[in-house]
Amino acid sequence: MNPSQRGAAVPKGAEPLPSRLASVRAELAAGGIDALLVTSAANTRYLTGFSGSNSLLVVSHDRAVLLTDFRYRTQASTEVASVVEVEIEGTSLWTRLWSVLRGLSGAKQLAFESTHLLHSDYQRLTDAGARWSWRPTSGIVEALRQRKDPTELAHIRRSVAVAESALAQTLPEIRAGVTELEVGARLEAALREHGSKAHPFETIIASGERAALPHARCSARELKSGDLLIVDFGATTAGYCSDITRTFVVGRASDQQRDAYDIVREANASASAGVRAGMRGRDADAIARDYIERQGLGPEFGHSLGHGIGLEVHEAPRLSKTSDAVLTAGAVVTIEPGIYREGWGGVRIEDDVFLGPDGPEVLTTFPRGLMELGAA
Amino acid sequence: MNPSQRGAAVPKGAEPLPSRLASVRAELAAGGIDALLVTSAANTRYLTGFSGSNSLLVVSHDRAVLLTDFRYRTQASTEVASVVEVEIEGTSLWTRLWSVLRGLSGAKQLAFESTHLLHSDYQRLTDAGARWSWRPTSGIVEALRQRKDPTELAHIRRSVAVAESALAQTLPEIRAGVTELEVGARLEAALREHGSKAHPFETIIASGERAALPHARCSARELKSGDLLIVDFGATTAGYCSDITRTFVVGRASDQQRDAYDIVREANASASAGVRAGMRGRDADAIARDYIERQGLGPEFGHSLGHGIGLEVHEAPRLSKTSDAVLTAGAVVTIEPGIYREGWGGVRIEDDVFLGPDGPEVLTTFPRGLMELGAA
Repeated sequence: MNPSQRGAAVPKGAEPLPSRLASVRAELAAGGIDALLVTSAANTRYLTGFSGSNSLLVVSHDRAVLLTDFRYRTQASTEVASVVEVEIEGTSLWTRLWSVLRGLSGAKQLAFESTHLLHSDYQRLTDAGARWSWRPTSGIVEALRQRKDPTELAHIRRSVAVAESALAQTLPEIRAGVTELEVGARLEAALREHGSKAHPFETIIASGERAALPHARCSARELKSGDLLIVDFGATTAGYCSDITRTFVVGRASDQQRDAYDIVREANASASAGVRAGMRGRDADAIARDYIERQGLGPEFGHSLGHGIGLEVHEAPRLSKTSDAVLTAGAVVTIEPGIYREGWGGVRIEDDVFLGPDGPEVLTTFPRGLMELGAA
Repeated sequence: MNPSQRGAAVPKGAEPLPSRLASVRAELAAGGIDALLVTSAANTRYLTGFSGSNSLLVVSHDRAVLLTDFRYRTQASTEVASVVEVEIEGTSLWTRLWSVLRGLSGAKQLAFESTHLLHSDYQRLTDAGARWSWRPTSGIVEALRQRKDPTELAHIRRSVAVAESALAQTLPEIRAGVTELEVGARLEAALREHGSKAHPFETIIASGERAALPHARCSARELKSGDLLIVDFGATTAGYCSDITRTFVVGRASDQQRDAYDIVREANASASAGVRAGMRGRDADAIARDYIERQGLGPEFGHSLGHGIGLEVHEAPRLSKTSDAVLTAGAVVTIEPGIYREGWGGVRIEDDVFLGPDGPEVLTTFPRGLMELGAA
């Protein structure tokens, strides 16, 4: 009805999936692994195009076989790249898996995704799948996913634009007397109208003293004049997420609110400007954390600075005080410092930042100045 | 703004959590287990009241200790029952876990939830946690959760009522020319306005040939006159889910559509009337499946009949052709037969049914007759 027109067009180009499979195969060859069992839905989507929620994917050196169930027959036929074989199973994907593996000539050393396999399914590997040798791996596909190609970056730009358009459409309806749930309803409807295919996480609308809860979702609480209001939300387009937070004041802001806001805004700005590919996650985190600590508010910033976004709303790399991971060029990360005081509220400002070859590019364009909503 | 007033009031009564912990402890005692590590968020909520997404819970014979992080400090203090100790950890819940376990005098034989623990976390147990003996378990808490107490049933009734009110509010806006995403936007906004705290799963709005995809979510497709339209959605109130599907025709229904609809409606009605506590899941499934097969449409009903709902939208018991599980008295299950034809569309009718002491009670009251929407 009112699709946002902002956001770059998605470039057309060569099908990227064969090169992704080739990268996985190079990793397998380096590790002496004959085939990888992929159980992460996001990794499966990245390698095959399939967006269903129930599948097993086997990637060997010369084949890629996707197993899914009846419900996804049509979807798989339209989504999955031609380089991937699709098998539809009516009863048990796991039983079918053994027959697929028996069909891989000479496959002995297999690998699985340790961070995406439940212990109960791991027991299947060591029980019914005991004729193969299984090695836990982690991060093979996730490492590839950090570096976004131009098509992926265009999807994320579009997802950011959809989210920002939805927020802009919602703001005029926010005033004292409206509940958090109503704000969430308006915002989520606007996200849909602008083309978001799914809500990448539960929308957080946290007002007043509830703004002290970093993960507060929505409640029936009515906004009051003088409230801080944290809005943390995102869009999904073509599977790619955005993740944005803005903090507002309902009515007129107090000096104390302005002071806290300015500190978070400065922490956000310095981290967004200073984050670089090649830096460790902990060093990115420190840009914002050191600043907030110098203001004497270190204990009030109790979470990490940010995380990668892409096919998942939380993916590698992590920007936290314990992360030694080196930030990959081409990653898109959130920069989301915040401060929280029990009984008073909180402030968080979150942007999505592309770690480009020429330095960081802040994809989020929504204004960061303190806005007073519904003030008379 | 417009909260639905339907649904029974939630009964006040004794705090149920201590008796739930006592039931778990009885299971542990029977198995010679000193303590259970609970990693399922839904199981944790059931036992403690905590609704956060990051926690570890230890239940021993005389203590229950919940570990969570800074973000949930305030939330944990308001939600968690007094019988549970709460520890807030700033860095790693797992590191903190070892110190909690060392504080359990004499604890040697520990158990973990095999279906809720990733292999990578299982490796923590056998590595840093190797001083204890770890046994995989499954379904200890889930078995308790099947039998809903009066408070839980009241929450589910309310969640059904919220979903039905939202659907009723949305129907007048559905007509040819509106997109699936717009229908989803209206429905989700209405769910919020009626008090749903979260969307328990991605709303499915599947029209025309997309109605042949049982898990189609929403697309930018515009509804056309003559389309079948599947709407599969739910509400969440106090953590408890509803899950409802209705199928409509946009404009005038054809005879072929009516024939298919009538078959699914009859399958739904006979299964809803015939399902009983004490029956095996496969026998419940067979009520609908046998009927559809007698109409010669067996291959078009390619998924299971239903599943339990509660704190999760998919929980025990399963009603499927392979399920030997006996349906527990007090469970709430979905009854959702459907038929799907590629290129033509599909029909699914899903109700939520309480398996009460006097037989099944269908909680869903939304009409099941074929409705033609937006017809001139």
